[in-house]
Order: sequence, then structure tokens, then C-alpha cells
Amino acid sequence: MNSFGMKLRYSTFGESHGKAIGCLLDGVPAGLDIDEAYIQSELDRRKPGKSEFETARKEADEVEILSGVFEGKSTGTPIAMIIYNTNQKSKDYTNIKDVFRPGHADFTYFHKYGIRDYRGGGRSSARETAARVAAGAVAKLMLKELDIEVLSGISEVAGIKAETFDYAKAKSSIIYALDADKEEEQKEAILKAKNDHDSVGGVSRVVIKGAPIGLGQPLYYKLDGVLADAMMGLNAVKAVEIGDGILSAATLGSDNNDEIRANGFESNHSGGILGGISNGEDIVMNVYFKPTPSIFKEQHTVTTTNEEVDFSLKGRHDPCVAIRGTVVCEAMAALVIADMLLLNMGSTMSGVSKYYK
Amino acid sequence: MNSFGMKLRYSTFGESHGKAIGCLLDGVPAGLDIDEAYIQSELDRRKPGKSEFETARKEADEVEILSGVFEGKSTGTPIAMIIYNTNQKSKDYTNIKDVFRPGHADFTYFHKYGIRDYRGGGRSSARETAARVAAGAVAKLMLKELDIEVLSGISEVAGIKAETFDYAKAKSSIIYALDADKEEEQKEAILKAKNDHDSVGGVSRVVIKGAPIGLGQPLYYKLDGVLADAMMGLNAVKAVEIGDGILSAATLGSDNNDEIRANGFESNHSGGILGGISNGEDIVMNVYFKPTPSIFKEQHTVTTTNEEVDFSLKGRHDPCVAIRGTVVCEAMAALVIADMLLLNMGSTMSGVSKYYK
Amino acid sequence: MNSFGMKLRYSTFGESHGKAIGCLLDGVPAGLDIDEAYIQSELDRRKPGKSEFETARKEADEVEILSGVFEGKSTGTPIAMIIYNTNQKSKDYTNIKDVFRPGHADFTYFHKYGIRDYRGGGRSSARETAARVAAGAVAKLMLKELDIEVLSGISEVAGIKAETFDYAKAKSSIIYALDADKEEEQKEAILKAKNDHDSVGGVSRVVIKGAPIGLGQPLYYKLDGVLADAMMGLNAVKAVEIGDGILSAATLGSDNNDEIRANGFESNHSGGILGGISNGEDIVMNVYFKPTPSIFKEQHTVTTTNEEVDFSLKGRHDPCVAIRGTVVCEAMAALVIADMLLLNMGSTMSGVSKYYK
Amino acid sequence: MNSFGMKLRYSTFGESHGKAIGCLLDGVPAGLDIDEAYIQSELDRRKPGKSEFETARKEADEVEILSGVFEGKSTGTPIAMIIYNTNQKSKDYTNIKDVFRPGHADFTYFHKYGIRDYRGGGRSSARETAARVAAGAVAKLMLKELDIEVLSGISEVAGIKAETFDYAKAKSSIIYALDADKEEEQKEAILKAKNDHDSVGGVSRVVIKGAPIGLGQPLYYKLDGVLADAMMGLNAVKAVEIGDGILSAATLGSDNNDEIRANGFESNHSGGILGGISNGEDIVMNVYFKPTPSIFKEQHTVTTTNEEVDFSLKGRHDPCVAIRGTVVCEAMAALVIADMLLLNMGSTMSGVSKYYK
Repeated sequence: MNSFGMKLRYSTFGESHGKAIGCLLDGVPAGLDIDEAYIQSELDRRKPGKSEFETARKEADEVEILSGVFEGKSTGTPIAMIIYNTNQKSKDYTNIKDVFRPGHADFTYFHKYGIRDYRGGGRSSARETAARVAAGAVAKLMLKELDIEVLSGISEVAGIKAETFDYAKAKSSIIYALDADKEEEQKEAILKAKNDHDSVGGVSRVVIKGAPIGLGQPLYYKLDGVLADAMMGLNAVKAVEIGDGILSAATLGSDNNDEIRANGFESNHSGGILGGISNGEDIVMNVYFKPTPSIFKEQHTVTTTNEEVDFSLKGRHDPCVAIRGTVVCEAMAALVIADMLLLNMGSTMSGVSKYYK
Repeated sequence: MNSFGMKLRYSTFGESHGKAIGCLLDGVPAGLDIDEAYIQSELDRRKPGKSEFETARKEADEVEILSGVFEGKSTGTPIAMIIYNTNQKSKDYTNIKDVFRPGHADFTYFHKYGIRDYRGGGRSSARETAARVAAGAVAKLMLKELDIEVLSGISEVAGIKAETFDYAKAKSSIIYALDADKEEEQKEAILKAKNDHDSVGGVSRVVIKGAPIGLGQPLYYKLDGVLADAMMGLNAVKAVEIGDGILSAATLGSDNNDEIRANGFESNHSGGILGGISNGEDIVMNVYFKPTPSIFKEQHTVTTTNEEVDFSLKGRHDPCVAIRGTVVCEAMAALVIADMLLLNMGSTMSGVSKYYK
Repeated sequence: MNSFGMKLRYSTFGESHGKAIGCLLDGVPAGLDIDEAYIQSELDRRKPGKSEFETARKEADEVEILSGVFEGKSTGTPIAMIIYNTNQKSKDYTNIKDVFRPGHADFTYFHKYGIRDYRGGGRSSARETAARVAAGAVAKLMLKELDIEVLSGISEVAGIKAETFDYAKAKSSIIYALDADKEEEQKEAILKAKNDHDSVGGVSRVVIKGAPIGLGQPLYYKLDGVLADAMMGLNAVKAVEIGDGILSAATLGSDNNDEIRANGFESNHSGGILGGISNGEDIVMNVYFKPTPSIFKEQHTVTTTNEEVDFSLKGRHDPCVAIRGTVVCEAMAALVIADMLLLNMGSTMSGVSKYYK
Repeated sequence: MNSFGMKLRYSTFGESHGKAIGCLLDGVPAGLDIDEAYIQSELDRRKPGKSEFETARKEADEVEILSGVFEGKSTGTPIAMIIYNTNQKSKDYTNIKDVFRPGHADFTYFHKYGIRDYRGGGRSSARETAARVAAGAVAKLMLKELDIEVLSGISEVAGIKAETFDYAKAKSSIIYALDADKEEEQKEAILKAKNDHDSVGGVSRVVIKGAPIGLGQPLYYKLDGVLADAMMGLNAVKAVEIGDGILSAATLGSDNNDEIRANGFESNHSGGILGGISNGEDIVMNVYFKPTPSIFKEQHTVTTTNEEVDFSLKGRHDPCVAIRGTVVCEAMAALVIADMLLLNMGSTMSGVSKYYK
């Protein structure tokens, strides 16, 4: 249950304050150039402590490849990657040793497993997403070979919406803002919440460019369904939209249909997916993150023995998890697309014959 | 790729205008009372042609159980159920034999598989969802034994939003409306679109009551992720929200967190899921359906040989797929919850020992 | 748990005395010519009642395709096939309604599921293998397109061993005997056991010709491992050998290694598999069937309430299940090879690039 | 494809001469006492270089747990274990850099993946089995809690067969011999082959004691089928028998059936499995290992460019892989049984209700 993907399958392990976190990536085609510097650069985009808009926890997040690569190329065997935890401060958590933090998984993990790993959320910590980014970076290297690109940025913070989506701009923005004209306002909203010992939500917009027609395995491993699972499974995500998403529920069919001409679709309300299969247009989705549940304001809660307590959280936390979350969305999207590319091979007998004859 | 679920696994087969559709349901615990009348009654809720708000295609949708049941009880072996197609009018589709209908899967299936089953959308038709409802009905029978209930209704049509969510009312409403005060307005919107040869979108709200704490397998088979996959995988669905969903991205942590008292949570912004695991509160989600792509207005499109044509669709179609879609959402939710209940067994060593000792 | 295969996945359903048995075959590449007459001819090879060497139960075993085929070609959607049971004589089993037949699954199914479907073994009956043969026939059609052939025959009956392996001869033999010189003796052994109200065991030898190098997914979906699972999972099978199998455990490395020359291997002790991957030689295995547990001699057993009884079985049974079993071995081998062919696509980045560019 | 198991799922990574090998074990129930010393002791049983009967390669095989354990107990999250390689001598292999060793996977891996990791067999090396033993040790800890024991020993070396099966004796024997009276003869056979620059095959006998009735998921995840896959998938294994195995194919039904009395079965020809489900008797299997393909005698082979060469292997190798292999067989059996125990929960509705009510 700690694995994802069918043909390109990755599994992750590790807890926020354990020795290390890491992943196993199985199914990478042999002969792919594994650019370790690139993988590290992706981890650097997600790593904490880069600015006042992020948690103060500093982690080098240096990734080490343990297997599956020989002389710079993938061998077709599992690629194991490990990231050691270096900056745990478990004592920050001793005061909540037996307390369930509202909005966190503490309560549900304890009741499911009967055990309380109180150190920074243990397995449920967003720290695990570093391993996703490492796996996603390898997927991105594979997609590059096929001229497929995954881009993302922050389209909304605390209700302040981007009006333009400039993915190049997002790459250079410290908060990955898509709209330069909204960036300052969005930054201020984050800092205000931070100063108020509170947190804000945000939205990541992800686009996949260059994906071929035909990705997605109907009817129960559809491209949109699997992307929704991948994104909804991220910490703090509460909604996922494909294309026009929610808006389309309020429109007319005649407005929502994407008509077709010889040179392609006249619009992309569908977000590049029809019947769960990519149609060659940009694949577009919006991922909605709730505000970081870790806030310093006093809150009502109970202990593992169900005693009521009022407490104020300590520790180091992101005032807006969507910021670093958008890097993880990209990684997940890349992993899904790479998996679908491999699954799609063999959809037709002519393709199979061509491959073997 | 035509299967869903891990421990309770179902697979479906069949095309809109083929001989039959059906499903295989594997993993149903032995000894469950299989109430065939109940299964049929669920199919009757989804079946077409019940009113002017639905397609005119009339299908009895009579389900026959072929295996897995002996003397009224499940035997632990796969339950195969079949529904014969009786009212195909394939000739309705001969005029679009080589034409891709905008908003439909025709284009993507053809390019993925190199074959055009033009008869009513073939495999991609929402007709397949009848098989989901049959499987879901068995899941509901299992949930009933555990006092878990899955309810749903239409919370929005063409932008007209329900303000109250009365699931009992929805059951008796011909359009499954949750808000009696909005029902008429919503009905009018549907009929207006129908008379305009157009279609409208809508939203289904689904709630699961009585689910125990602990459902969901982190980190990659989370309850919210799998529900999102299940719902997004339905025909015409473009967005899925859990709990406050999109709203939570615009709120503060101090407003969004559900504080806890000895007798439970003080609110349910999370929609009953924390860290991908159920927390004992109602599990709540909203499922957004786009307008039916099948409209009678003239549209631009191309043929399988990429020639541009303008055409007007014929055939029989739902003016608002969300209506019958809400019944399918219930079925999917029931299947996911039943699967998670079975997967959750064995989460703790004490549970395993209790089972075997 | 009623499914097999990863990329070409099939599921079966049905009980010996239920309405019907059947299968779902998912993952068949689109555009394969589906020769229904050929599928039926494979079922005819397995069907019972063809001679005195088989059970007297007569079943037409007529297969009907319900989905996944349009205008004679596979569409890429699941192929559902159904075979109605026509000659159940459940009353033959009323005398063993509460009795566990020695050597049968009655005892274990009852204790696992708490339910006794006494009618001819219910789900555990070898009747289910008709569905495997139908699925296997489609796999064989796919293999034919790639010039891969699956052959088999009976190499041993009641300890009487074939010395030559003539697969053409086997096809025409009523007991699928590989060695014409042993056929009579083997037939006599079967009839003698039958007249003594007893049964005999036998061995099926299966060979796959023309498989490319590279089939098998190390380290946990190896070709030999999956073949072993597929064969050992068949009713009455108690041992599986690849290549020299048991003999190799008693030889020296210098005798057992297959040395290599420019034009290929100098021998095939390995049975065409090295490290779980096909090496281009014939893939060879031996499948050992125990004697039919259904015998008419009086036996000791107990009832579902654990009362001791001595009883003599009635009903209609094969005196040697290996005979018809060899046809099922072929089907399973074909399904495994077809699955491995599809899984193998995407093993190398150059293959992936070639496919998409 | 580097994973095994459904509910208790483990994945391994690493190459013979890479930085490290290891495994991820997912699905271990929370609250299991994780005795690290025991896990290490199991690795010590398998580790090389303990005697003249094994390879001279010395590896400490010290296992480190990276995750999934908190305060000595499993947390329900993935248990990652790592073993660093310390004694690689890759230069031993430079003379075979481009040469395919007969009987090895070199040839098939190269043709499947287009890459040659010549260092000690890379991923295909039996070194990977250390990771299996680590995972298996955790499974054994789980089985112990349920009073289930997995035992094994060597029943045959170079054709010299044990006549008694003394599992306690095997534990203390340097070659894990089951029969004290045959141990010397078996040892001599190994040393003779070693001195002749050759190798010998052998047979491991595995027995599982105390398994409850009902393990195994028919019809395609049967206990015998999955055990066959698990064992056949081990390096050098060429045949697997359950119970009387091959012998049963030559006997009569009246001899082979295990008759039943109120206190249990009168015999155990079936090896404790009927219809793919455990029947409460000892589960017994024999696993046949071919001779180590690595021998020092000159052999014919070809290079990666298909040039013929005669060469003599260097390096350090086991003269009889079955010896250390039997420890791996135990580990695999433990993993399969633990997986089946977890899968079996939920087989009946009464069991499910008991668990949740």
C-alpha cells in the first residue's frame, strides 16, 4: 500500500524523524541516462528552509542512488534512492507526545495502527514527498527523451488568484507564482498568516505538454482517474480538477464541448483527456491544498487517552504547504504519465507485431 | 485495466450495443445474504427512460446472477452478473459511423486502438455503469451488515445550487434533488436545455455514514485518493472534492482545522478523512459532471480520415448525465468502502492474533 | 483471487453445476483476428465424454463471445466468453451432500468459507478449466501472429513413460499420447484402473516453440516462476519441472550447463530459461498430475459435522485427469507467454523511443 | 516486477557488486515485536564463507532497519532494511566482462536489457537472496506469534538421498543435512566436485508446521501455486514438488488419496494442500537445485558480440548452491504463509462482522 503505478512502479519508505527516507523505482526501461545532478536539482526545488515562506527545518536532502544504475545508465533493475534525515528535532514534539494535532493524521494513524509515532507526524509527514520527487525526477528524464514536459506553478494563495499562467516565471519565483502581478499580494498573505501564527491554503496548476494521444487504460485505470488519485493522495490536498473542472458543471454542452478541426481541437475545456485517454492537447489540472494544519494558535484537542486539552503547537512548519507541494504535483504527474506510456505499448496488435518482428 | 479494487475486486465487460454487459465481483466474503430483489432495485434507480429528464432509450436492465451464490448466500467465489442489451438502435449511429462526436471518447479510442466501434460509444458508453451499480449493490448489502450507509443526491444543476442536503428527499425525487426548494428550478433548467437541443452539467453529493475509523491504506491507497480515482473515472466527471474541498484552499488553518473534544470532532471540514484514513465522521464528497456531450446542435468535427464536417447528432441522450450519475457515484463509493474494510483487517498484530487464536 | 496475468489478465467465474462458467480476458491488443471456430475447436479438445478414457458427463461446451470483438477483430476492450452448463446431474451428489470426498477440496473449501457447495465440487471442479481453455485459445491466436507455438502431450501414464515426444502424434491420439509405442500400454493402464473402480496419474509435457529471447520479468515475475504457478494451480497437479528439472539436481555442473556457440546453445538442459528469462531455445516443462481423487472404492472420511463414515463415490469421473489436463496446460502456457510478451515491451529505452517516435 | 506478495508485499533491490542490497516489506501488521538480533541470526545462517562447502566470498551481511519500526515494534508502515556490500572483488570479473557464462543469466539479461553488468552477475546474483532472508525473518516473527513454524534442510546432494528428515539435526549441520547418516557422504560429494573444479546439485525439503486450515486464495492465488512460484523463482531451482509430487503421478487414486477420520487425515500424500488451500496437516515441499553453473572447467561460450571463446571461470563460488539455498527457501515459505494468513482474513462475513462489531 506504499506503492504506486503499474508498469513503472515506485514504493517509498521512511518517517519524518527516522534514519532515512527513500524510494524504490521499478520498471524504468534499461539504457536511460540517469543524470544524478538533475535528480538532486529537483529535490533542491522541494527542499525546506529556502525562504521565509517555508518551514525553518533545514534538510540537505542529498539523494544517493544505491542500485539500478551502471555506468550512468539504468539497467532495467530497481533504482533504489535514499535520503538521510539530518535535522530531526524530535524533542520539539515531546510536548505533543500524546496529543492529537487537529487537521493532522495523528488521530487516524493511532486508531488504525494502535501506535503513536509522534515525531513530526512519522510516516504521514509531508517529508515523505521528497522520495516522490526523487522518483519523479527519473520519470521526467524518461519523458524528456520523448519530448514530454511537466510544468506547474501556484495559481492561487489564500483566495488570491492568478490571471495569467507563466510557467517560466513560476520556475524562478520563490513561491512558484504563475502570475507576476499577483506574486507580491500572495507573498504578503502568506507572511500575514505566518505572523498571525496561522496558515493559508493554495492551488497548484499542473500542465503536461507533448503527451501523445492514447495515454490512459480504460475503464478503471483512466488517465484522469489515476491523476486524481495521485494528487488527492498528497498531504493536504482536498480537491482535484481536470480541465475546466468545476466550471464545466455549470455550463451548457454547446459551450463545454471542444469542437474539432483538421488541425486539432478548437478549445481545451476537457483538459486534454476524453474518456480517460489523452487526446494530444495539453493535459491540465488544478490541485487544491488546504492550509497547513500546523498552526501556533491555541486549539482544542484530546490525548491518546481521550482527555481534553487546549494546546499551542511548537515546531517548524510551512505557512502554505501548496508552495513546495507544487513540486510534488509535478513529480506525481511525471510518474503517472511515464507509467501510462509504458502501459500503452501493446494496445494494438500491429504495435506488438512491429515490436517483435 | 477493466478492474477496480484490491481485496474486493470487480471487473466489468460489455459495450453499449453489444450482446450484454456485466461484471465479475471477486472477494465477497462467504455467507453474505444476496438479496437479488435489492440488486435489481438499485439497477432500477439507474436505468434509463424513467422520465423526460432522461434518455428515451428504454432498457429493462434485468440482472442475472450466474455464479458465486448458492442457496441465497455468497460462497466466496466470484459473483458474475449479466445484463443483456435489449434496446440497441445501432442504426441511429450509422450517420456518425466515421465521425468523432465532440466531447466524446470516439477520438481517443480510435487513435489508441485503431478501431471504431461507433455503436453508441461502444465500451466508453455510460451504459457500462449499469454493471458498476450491480456490483455496488452487493457491496451495499455487505455494508448494511456493518451498519454503514451510502447516500447521495443532486446538489447542483446548471449552476443552481442546493442549500439543504436532504438525502431522504433525494431518494424520492425523480431528479434525485437534495433540496426540495430548488428542485423545480433545476428541472426547468434541464428541460430548457433539452428543448434547446443542448445539455447541462450537475453535481452529485455523496455521504457515507457509519464508516469506522481506520479505513484507507496509506500512503498510496488512501481512502481519499481511491475515492477520487473512482469518481473521476466516471463518464463526464471533471472534478472531485473531499469535505470543504476547493473552499479550504481559500481559508485559514485556524478556520479549516477540525478541533477535537472527548465526544468527537467539533466540525467536519475534512470530510471525514485525515491523512487518507477515515476518522469516524461522515465521509463527504462532491462529484462534478460536465454537460452531456451528446447535443443536437450542429457542431464542427472531423472524420476518421480527418476530413472536416459539420453535423448534428441524432440518437437518445440524457440532457443531464449527473442525474443518473449520482446512483453510480453511490455504487462506486460502496465498492471503495467495502474494499477498504477488507483491506483494513490485519492492520494490527493484535487483530491478526484475535482472528486466528 | 480469481484472476491471473499482469498485462494480459484473465478472470474466470462459475461452478460445476451452476448456470454457466466463463471468463473475462482483459488486455488483448486491439486488431487481433478472433477466430471463433478456432476457440471452439480448442474447447472441443478439452471437452468431456469423447471416449471411454474420460468422464461420461457430456457437455457441448459451446462458447459464446459477449464483448470485446467487433466485426471479427478484438477492440482492446475485455473479451467476455460464456459457456452454459447443460448436463449437470446434481442429484448424483446428494449422497455426498455432507461428506468430504478424500483427495478433494471439499474439506478445505468448507473450512475456509463455511459453506458447502456439494454439487460436483462447485467452484473447485476441473470444469472451470474450460474457461481457461477459451482464454488460452485467444492467447494462442495472438502467439500465432508472432509465430510462437505451444504444444503438449502425455508423456507418462501410471508410470509408463514415453521415450519419444511426437507432438503431432499427440494431437491425433485420443489420450494425447506422445509416444505411439507406449500408447496402447498407457490406454490399458487407464482402463484397468477404471474397471477396478480406481484411477491413475499421469504427466503432461509442454513445449513452447519460437518464443523470443527476453520473456520473463525478474526477479519476482520470472518466466519459470509464473509457469510453475500456472501449472501447479491446476487441479490435481503436484509437481512442475522446467527443463531437466529433478534430474539436474543429481548431475554435475559440467554436465548440466548448456554451452554456447555462435549459432546458439549446444544443449537445452535449462529448458529454455536462464535467470527467469527465455533464452530463445524451446521452453520445456513437465507437469505431474495425481490420480483422480474421485474413485468408486469404499473410503474412510467424515461429514461436515465430523462424523466418521465409509462411503463409495458415485457420479461421472475421468479415470486419468492428466489426459484432458494437458489441453489446459497448453492454454495456461499460452496465456503466460502472451502476458510476458506484452510485459516485455518497454524493457529498454530504445524500444520505448522507437515505439513513440 | 521486483515485488512479491499481495497483502504482505516485499520488494528487493541491489546488485551483487553495487553499494548495497535491501528490501522493503510492506503490510506488516502494527505492533509486532521486531527482534533485530533474530533477523541478523537468520542472515547469518545464509551468509557466505562459513565453511569449505561455501563460496570464499566473506560478507558480514549486517542488516540495518531504516524505517517502519518505532520503540521495538512495527508501526504498520514499510520496513526498509539495507545490507551494504563490503567484499566485492569486481576485478575477478573483468576477464568475463564480455563473456556469457554458461548456465548463468548473463546471456538473457544482456539480450533483454541491452546492458551487461558483468560484476558477479549483477542483479541476477544469488546475493539478492540475502534481502529475501531479511524479509522472511520478519515474516517468521509474525508466524511465531501464531505458533506457526517453517523448517527445512538438505534432503539430497549429488543424488545422495536422505532417508530420515531430522529438522533439528539440519539446523546444527554445516550443510543443513537432514539425515546424519548421509551427511558425511554428502559432504564428500561436495568437496570432490569442488576439487574437480566442478559443482553438484541438491534438494531442499521444506515443511510448515501449525498452519491453520484455509490458507490459499482459489483459483489463481492458490497456496501451492504461489509456493511453486516463490521456490521456482529462486536461483538455480528447476523443479518443485508438493507432498508426494512426482511419485503421485505414478500411483493409484486409492493409494494417493488421504482418507479422513474424526481426528484428522490418515496420511499426508497431498503435502497439506487440497484445492490450493491448506488442510491443517504439515505443508511439505521439495525444491530441486541444479549444480552451481559457476565452474572452473574450461567451457565453450560466446561474447556479447557473438564471438566463440573457450574460457575458465575465476572468482568465488558455492560448490552446491542448495546448501545456502535452503535458508532462502524457508524465508520464501514464511513470506508466502504470512501473506496468505493476512489475505485469508475476510473470507467469511461472520469473520468480518466479528472484526468490526
